[in-house]
Amino acid sequence: MAASKRNSTKSNFNLDAFLASSTEQVNAALDHFLPSEKTKPATIHKAMRYSLFAGGKRMRPALALAAAAACGGRAADALPLACAVECIHTYSLVHDDLPAMDNDDFRRGKPTNHKVFGEGIAVLAGDALLTQAFEIAAQCRSWPRYSHRDIILEIARASGSLQLIAGQVADLEGEGKKTSAAQLKYIHERKTSALLCCSARLGGMSANCSPTQLAALTDFGYHVGLAFQVIDDILDVTQTSEQLGKTAGKDTKAQKATYPSIVGLEKSRKIATELTNKAFASLKPFKGKAVALEALAEFLLKRDR
Amino acid sequence: MAASKRNSTKSNFNLDAFLASSTEQVNAALDHFLPSEKTKPATIHKAMRYSLFAGGKRMRPALALAAAAACGGRAADALPLACAVECIHTYSLVHDDLPAMDNDDFRRGKPTNHKVFGEGIAVLAGDALLTQAFEIAAQCRSWPRYSHRDIILEIARASGSLQLIAGQVADLEGEGKKTSAAQLKYIHERKTSALLCCSARLGGMSANCSPTQLAALTDFGYHVGLAFQVIDDILDVTQTSEQLGKTAGKDTKAQKATYPSIVGLEKSRKIATELTNKAFASLKPFKGKAVALEALAEFLLKRDR
Repeated sequence: MAASKRNSTKSNFNLDAFLASSTEQVNAALDHFLPSEKTKPATIHKAMRYSLFAGGKRMRPALALAAAAACGGRAADALPLACAVECIHTYSLVHDDLPAMDNDDFRRGKPTNHKVFGEGIAVLAGDALLTQAFEIAAQCRSWPRYSHRDIILEIARASGSLQLIAGQVADLEGEGKKTSAAQLKYIHERKTSALLCCSARLGGMSANCSPTQLAALTDFGYHVGLAFQVIDDILDVTQTSEQLGKTAGKDTKAQKATYPSIVGLEKSRKIATELTNKAFASLKPFKGKAVALEALAEFLLKRDR
Repeated sequence: MAASKRNSTKSNFNLDAFLASSTEQVNAALDHFLPSEKTKPATIHKAMRYSLFAGGKRMRPALALAAAAACGGRAADALPLACAVECIHTYSLVHDDLPAMDNDDFRRGKPTNHKVFGEGIAVLAGDALLTQAFEIAAQCRSWPRYSHRDIILEIARASGSLQLIAGQVADLEGEGKKTSAAQLKYIHERKTSALLCCSARLGGMSANCSPTQLAALTDFGYHVGLAFQVIDDILDVTQTSEQLGKTAGKDTKAQKATYPSIVGLEKSRKIATELTNKAFASLKPFKGKAVALEALAEFLLKRDR
């Protein structure tokens, strides 16, 4: 059933147009929220903008906007939250790329932040993006159902030491060690799924969604998030650095556990499809109105970079 | 007048008891808000708690509680904000101590975070403390005059790329270069004064203070913050590492501009006293009810560590 639903979705919804429009709105809003490159001290604002505008796919903001649309909300209300989540995602990449962590020289086809600005400024640029995320989020619209307090707690918890950061810690500590499939799932749930799930939930909250809708978005975001990371693992093995715009094969090199290394490539692909099917199933309460979310899940499953 | 007022304050208010009680309440609240050391992943929570409970003087929380008291507020309402500010202060120290920044091995008489947990975890522990600050702050009480939105914006702006982080960037970029007194003031305003000022303001906001009181606290926090850093500079030159519990003379070693290096030791002491007098003068609207704030300013001026 899920498969046929996916086919019908594809033909009815123009995802390319949605993504182009979503990216354009998010880029304009980020440009508006962030201090200009000339604002003193210029170095930090150049460094923040360098990574924020390095050609990211803006998948988390797209998820937030698609979730808002599914709940009948306006993009304008979801935008500050979409931008906040993108700032958090970018900060996490800047810090993860540091020599003390993944030690990566390239990201999205460009030298990583610390390669351009030095390690000290890269640490501070990450800190500043994380702080900026909360400043932007606090400027969102609040609703009777979802207050600023709820929004800030949502973001802080998804990004904190029990979720996003927990994933990075477990990832860091797991390098070179034997990792079980269960442990890998623990890492993926936190490192990737938490913030994708948060993005979908924030989109719903920006549209004053019902508790049933919020539960559906949580379920959807969780499964799409897990699928997203399984596919990331697959691409790391199957694609070249040029195709990815970042160092390919780095998981293998760093002796990091991945789905392909634990269960093999074919089983990994099957798991990604199953997770995407579960994501689809969770959209039932939207009764066909979550077209953008469906198309996004399909796109994320089939992406090649 | 300021001097005589300071003398009378000293005799009437038991600052030691206030600081002991404030520290006890803040430590208990931080312990309550932070995940335990056993919470998975244990490493990150151990690292966060290691620096948070490393014997800091809890000056920012004390300032918040003293400001709340001056406005007739309850300590319980100020506590989450006092804890949030302390988390931000601690994160900034953990990151500033990193090899890529100040490269410091000791802080408060103990090995710095990265010396114990490694650089990767130290970066993440700082990130987690910063994130935790917003999670804690969002749990504060809100008032008709000060919403959660106001509180979060207050903290994010004082800690962001235009204030706290700007100060650290300017400090980093100024090393080994000739710095003017004006540039040094720019650094101190951001690196130290911004968060101290924010602490005082948050204390007032937690007590639903009047706009006049908030303006007075802003003025007070600004001047106390500047005085605090001038004295820090003086102590770095005049005290031993043992007395300070951190590496003494490191500013000179790193060729960092300080008040003593630019205007000399005697003039620096005079500036610190003048700033403290200005802080006192700003408390006029409280009509003698800001005894804890007065005693704190006096204490900060005369401290030897």
